[in-house]
Amino acid sequence: MDTMYWKDNTLFLLDQTKLPIEVTYVKLKTYEEVAEAIVSMKVRGAPAIGAAAAYGMVLGVMGFRNDQNLDNYLRNVYETLKNTRPTAVNLFWALDRMWKKYLEVKNQNFEEIAKALLNEAKSIFYEDIELNKKIGAYGLEVVPENASILTHCNAGALATAGYGTALGVVRAAFAAGKLKRVFADETRPLLQGARLTAFELLEDGIDVTLICDNMAGYVMSLGLVDLVVVGADRVTANGDVANKIGTYSLAILAKEHGIPFYVAAPYSTIDLNLNSGKDIPIEERNPDEVRKIGDRLIAPSKVKVFNPAFDVTPAKYITGIITDRGIVRPPYRENIKKLFGGN
Amino acid sequence: MDTMYWKDNTLFLLDQTKLPIEVTYVKLKTYEEVAEAIVSMKVRGAPAIGAAAAYGMVLGVMGFRNDQNLDNYLRNVYETLKNTRPTAVNLFWALDRMWKKYLEVKNQNFEEIAKALLNEAKSIFYEDIELNKKIGAYGLEVVPENASILTHCNAGALATAGYGTALGVVRAAFAAGKLKRVFADETRPLLQGARLTAFELLEDGIDVTLICDNMAGYVMSLGLVDLVVVGADRVTANGDVANKIGTYSLAILAKEHGIPFYVAAPYSTIDLNLNSGKDIPIEERNPDEVRKIGDRLIAPSKVKVFNPAFDVTPAKYITGIITDRGIVRPPYRENIKKLFGGN
Repeated sequence: MDTMYWKDNTLFLLDQTKLPIEVTYVKLKTYEEVAEAIVSMKVRGAPAIGAAAAYGMVLGVMGFRNDQNLDNYLRNVYETLKNTRPTAVNLFWALDRMWKKYLEVKNQNFEEIAKALLNEAKSIFYEDIELNKKIGAYGLEVVPENASILTHCNAGALATAGYGTALGVVRAAFAAGKLKRVFADETRPLLQGARLTAFELLEDGIDVTLICDNMAGYVMSLGLVDLVVVGADRVTANGDVANKIGTYSLAILAKEHGIPFYVAAPYSTIDLNLNSGKDIPIEERNPDEVRKIGDRLIAPSKVKVFNPAFDVTPAKYITGIITDRGIVRPPYRENIKKLFGGN
Repeated sequence: MDTMYWKDNTLFLLDQTKLPIEVTYVKLKTYEEVAEAIVSMKVRGAPAIGAAAAYGMVLGVMGFRNDQNLDNYLRNVYETLKNTRPTAVNLFWALDRMWKKYLEVKNQNFEEIAKALLNEAKSIFYEDIELNKKIGAYGLEVVPENASILTHCNAGALATAGYGTALGVVRAAFAAGKLKRVFADETRPLLQGARLTAFELLEDGIDVTLICDNMAGYVMSLGLVDLVVVGADRVTANGDVANKIGTYSLAILAKEHGIPFYVAAPYSTIDLNLNSGKDIPIEERNPDEVRKIGDRLIAPSKVKVFNPAFDVTPAKYITGIITDRGIVRPPYRENIKKLFGGN
């Protein structure tokens, strides 16, 4: 099942808000529709958001009318897509890459510009799958035989162009015969673990057990978890990691139980511009995501809610960061610089 | 709003599965209906379950027909009520107390037996409110000025005969002008925090903010929590505490952030017969509680689920146990023995 595909000048996007009950694709023909799909989380997951935004730039160019200034127009497309969500850096990385490509080709004719941008978006998409396979291969090193892996949210095929980051490691372990089972945190409020991770692992025939987020500590205390692997929305120069809300708690629980805690992410998630996790903007979302499930009210309609979509896990809780260039271990600042350079 | 009340030889029980959307009372006329209400969690919370079971014994006696042996019949009532849920000890404590009363009065005439049991059930119920007020008064000592308190599940008026254990401490702090705000974990899968704690604190005009369970660590990291207070389903002789799933994780998170972690419970929750938390049976409930919310499927219908209803928090993570006889602090075995004796 593809997270998204390009056909007939249209972005077909798997509507992840409907999974696992319905498998439907929305057809996006304008950059505004792509922006809306990112905001409403029809597409989610840092690498998938980046790829969708890249295609959004292509749709933007395709919607250009000759009475406008292309530079100004496309910068507006870029800003609209950029302002959809603040935390995952892959969005900005992909948009910057598209903008750079635009600057390279902007003096060509319009059709050539559009074609070049489409090729660049496709490159971003297809490269991501390769990055994830490399992450899986490197991650395999840290997976013991007969491993029970706990994961949070969905850092799978559905969060990326395919294969997944954290679930890339799971898939590599499964293919290598090293995987016993996976525990998937359901991941409130939007239940990406219950809806997406459980779904995609079942599709692949991988043994997955769903738990509520508050059960992870107890499951660890029973000796049922050998390692934790999660994805990332942004990694800063010192190795701090922003990821789905609950990741930070999980890292502390892993530390208390002596369980290795790994983050899996491609180079496009590493933000060398930020010194530490304190600099990462944390998105707060609509309180109704917590008060309701679907349309169903599960709390008093007037109750105050705090709904941060992400948290930051300080590097000190992280055993290693599994990237497409190898596993980064402490000291993170030094080792991130070695593999990814610095500004 | 009463958790339950007795009128016209009927137990009127607030149906907590319908809160906060509907406030309805079910009318229970047989002990089997009480047993079903406990299993289906129309009534929940250790002290409230105990009180409901005591009234169940009364309904049992009232359903006695003369062609049976009263001892055998009532023992069967006792066993039926006892087998509803395994973890909270207050259920067994209340049933044993009712049985002891029965043995005292069994040679009297039937009407006197029924009357004595009804009085005993009412004593259990009304005493519980007094116990909770004492817990609140003792708990006030550990609440700093302008306190932000985080709680889990519902250990409130709805979990007890009234006032609450953990929320008794909250109410005492509110009445004393020491309370700034409460954070309520929603408490998946059955959402007692979202449905019940948020509801009863709002009714009392207490400032409550609802969060998902996986947000607690992040909220602590922001410096927004001064102390954690939770209830208990069973406390063993060494100070280990069984409570709603997620309590253990919360205790570890509190320790990591240097935040005091208190348990509030009446003497009826302390089980001196058990040496440690390892001896507490942990109830596992229906997987559909996790796969569904209400009737709505939120995960693949076939996915495996692990659904423990409780976990055990080792005494080492607990700053103090706030009881109706004072606050117990480490060393727990010694200090529990001082306050509650031993077998």
